[in-house]
Amino acid sequence: MTVRELAQQAKAASGKLAITSAQTRNDALLAMADALLAAAPDILRANAEDVRAAKECGMKPSFIDRLTLDEKRIEGMANGLRKVSLLPDPIGKSDYVAVRPNGLRIEKRRVPLGVVGIIYEARPNVTADAIALCIKSGNACVLRGGSEAIRSNAATCDALSAAAVQSGIPQGAIQLLRDTDRAAASEMMKLNGLIDVLIPRGGAGLIQSVVQQATVPVIETGVGVCHVYIDESADAGMGADIIENAKCSRPSVCNAAETLLVHAAIADRALPQIATRLTARGVELRCDARAKALMPGSIDASEEDWSTEYTDLILSIKVVDSFDEAVKHIETYGTHHSDAIVTSRYDVAERFLNEVNSAAVYVNASTRFTDGEEFGFGAEIGISTQKIHARGPMGLDELTTVKYAIRGEGQIR
Amino acid sequence: MTVRELAQQAKAASGKLAITSAQTRNDALLAMADALLAAAPDILRANAEDVRAAKECGMKPSFIDRLTLDEKRIEGMANGLRKVSLLPDPIGKSDYVAVRPNGLRIEKRRVPLGVVGIIYEARPNVTADAIALCIKSGNACVLRGGSEAIRSNAATCDALSAAAVQSGIPQGAIQLLRDTDRAAASEMMKLNGLIDVLIPRGGAGLIQSVVQQATVPVIETGVGVCHVYIDESADAGMGADIIENAKCSRPSVCNAAETLLVHAAIADRALPQIATRLTARGVELRCDARAKALMPGSIDASEEDWSTEYTDLILSIKVVDSFDEAVKHIETYGTHHSDAIVTSRYDVAERFLNEVNSAAVYVNASTRFTDGEEFGFGAEIGISTQKIHARGPMGLDELTTVKYAIRGEGQIR
Repeated sequence: MTVRELAQQAKAASGKLAITSAQTRNDALLAMADALLAAAPDILRANAEDVRAAKECGMKPSFIDRLTLDEKRIEGMANGLRKVSLLPDPIGKSDYVAVRPNGLRIEKRRVPLGVVGIIYEARPNVTADAIALCIKSGNACVLRGGSEAIRSNAATCDALSAAAVQSGIPQGAIQLLRDTDRAAASEMMKLNGLIDVLIPRGGAGLIQSVVQQATVPVIETGVGVCHVYIDESADAGMGADIIENAKCSRPSVCNAAETLLVHAAIADRALPQIATRLTARGVELRCDARAKALMPGSIDASEEDWSTEYTDLILSIKVVDSFDEAVKHIETYGTHHSDAIVTSRYDVAERFLNEVNSAAVYVNASTRFTDGEEFGFGAEIGISTQKIHARGPMGLDELTTVKYAIRGEGQIR
Repeated sequence: MTVRELAQQAKAASGKLAITSAQTRNDALLAMADALLAAAPDILRANAEDVRAAKECGMKPSFIDRLTLDEKRIEGMANGLRKVSLLPDPIGKSDYVAVRPNGLRIEKRRVPLGVVGIIYEARPNVTADAIALCIKSGNACVLRGGSEAIRSNAATCDALSAAAVQSGIPQGAIQLLRDTDRAAASEMMKLNGLIDVLIPRGGAGLIQSVVQQATVPVIETGVGVCHVYIDESADAGMGADIIENAKCSRPSVCNAAETLLVHAAIADRALPQIATRLTARGVELRCDARAKALMPGSIDASEEDWSTEYTDLILSIKVVDSFDEAVKHIETYGTHHSDAIVTSRYDVAERFLNEVNSAAVYVNASTRFTDGEEFGFGAEIGISTQKIHARGPMGLDELTTVKYAIRGEGQIR
């Protein structure tokens, strides 16, 4: 089947799916969880083939790790489906009802987006996650996963799709693009009228490729050059705790910090202890001249470092002379994802929250909290770094749009 | 100045504009209204040149009419600025504050989009409207109006921009692209990182050109193939009132009806009186075979008619055998803009509201109400026909995005 045919089937199913009850969708998610566990042997067999092929191609161990499924990961995927079934239904609620002077009742109602396209890399667990969130929110989906995981994704999708249909989800609502050719992905990005929104999930290269090629609306996700700024008014110990956590707790994710900015007035108190703690955690320190003098074992940062998302145990460090210089640095080199200040001053805290133009701005907390789960959304389809439709962690509400349902008694204008 | 330089200036101004107070922005709008009236002689002189050039090029009278300004239209533009100053401030309000178990306070706050790009055709009053809504919502703007109105737009922009700066709006927040070359417009559509969103306003050709070319996120506006469906349960007189209003009250706009669907069981009662009334209003009736037999003076509709936005006194008419056939027709040929049913049955009304997947769905009212003013938004920057970010009439709230402001006491994860 061509990608256009897949999308046409998804589109046809989306109209029926949009008017299923929450009960039907939740029951389906539970049945899909059971089906996933029942299909575990098939999925693991398919995954083993994917892993063997990836090893033969000489893929890196970190890649192989992300690609590999085991019984525990499949259980995690099934639990994810069950958890999503328990979340509040995002569909049908109204946050605006106006009765106009002419008597028209105008209700703004949450409805599914329609058909969501998701383009992602070789993490087969994303397949189950994405399907769960789309079905919960009443959306059909067209998935295009990394070619290296195609057998795993196909086995997962087959199991979930069959269970969904048995539970009353319209046939065709869950589509996986099995043609792993790049041309098919490019065609998918141009299916205006069939796909309502594209969400790319993956590295900067994937995301840029989608932004550049797509004519379907895109929600850009992910790239995070996040900062921690330790103000002169900071508790130096709190600053050290926060940067250690923001850098080291999970360096591969987009909400990890990449750059530490330190006010000159506190640099000699803060930086030596930070150097000790980060070096002990294996972090490479890339510094400007003033920071380098205070951080034993550090090396020189280049201009490029300030705009680099390392996703690794590397941190760039700069000493600044003022709050304004810190904000300017963040605005110049950052990606407007997540940025934090450590300060004890009220006015400085409020200015940071106002003036730093990022999806998430923190006072005295780690940037690592930018996450749908941590924000209380119960689930996350990605973290938007653009400004339209969604910004920051995207939960189920961000997979909906609105319609206006208007009731009259013959009004004309 | 190149379009990139214009956008860089707008971007630089947008950070400062975003943190101006509502008072500053409202005072500026009032000063801008005064300045517009004071500059009326200059603007009218510039407009007269635009009109003369357009006439020399042989433009149609309807085009000349949209292009022409007079004192009354300039007063209307000034009143528009004043009216926008009185609307509630869309910036800074929070619709979600969560206190998480770890004590983090997560506030979702409305902030400006940043830099809004608006591409429009030769209606110079759009220039003042768009600037008013952008300044009110704390957004810098880059405007690209139709080349035929360039002198009028430049004079308008100069007057408004000078008054804005004098009132504390940062220099550079209001930008007009004076290079009317298409290449400059194309470049504008690719300024990711400088322009946050593009809103095209105009005909289908302009909008498609932006959707196809842009890499900056776009909010698609406008094209409306809107339907009125008269169900077998309808009051035939109400049906006639509604289709006459939906077609004739202003046929050039996107919320005007283009197609009438009538249930076979009521066609012989409804269609003859509708034919009489619409013919008296000068409407050309393009019918399927069954409708034609009931509508004196009508002609045959072609397949193309069902998907045509006439924006003129032309209506296509089809007799359907069921509610389902009507819904299927609307989903197949419509643009999901505004669609209405006329019915006396509760279940049919609710099914229509649920099953027709359009931005605005009406029971017993004219499609002509799809409008920011009529919906109670106080202003409108356009009508979105896409699903992400905004759908239906876009008011000031739709010119904002969110940021998460998070207050902690040293939390790490």
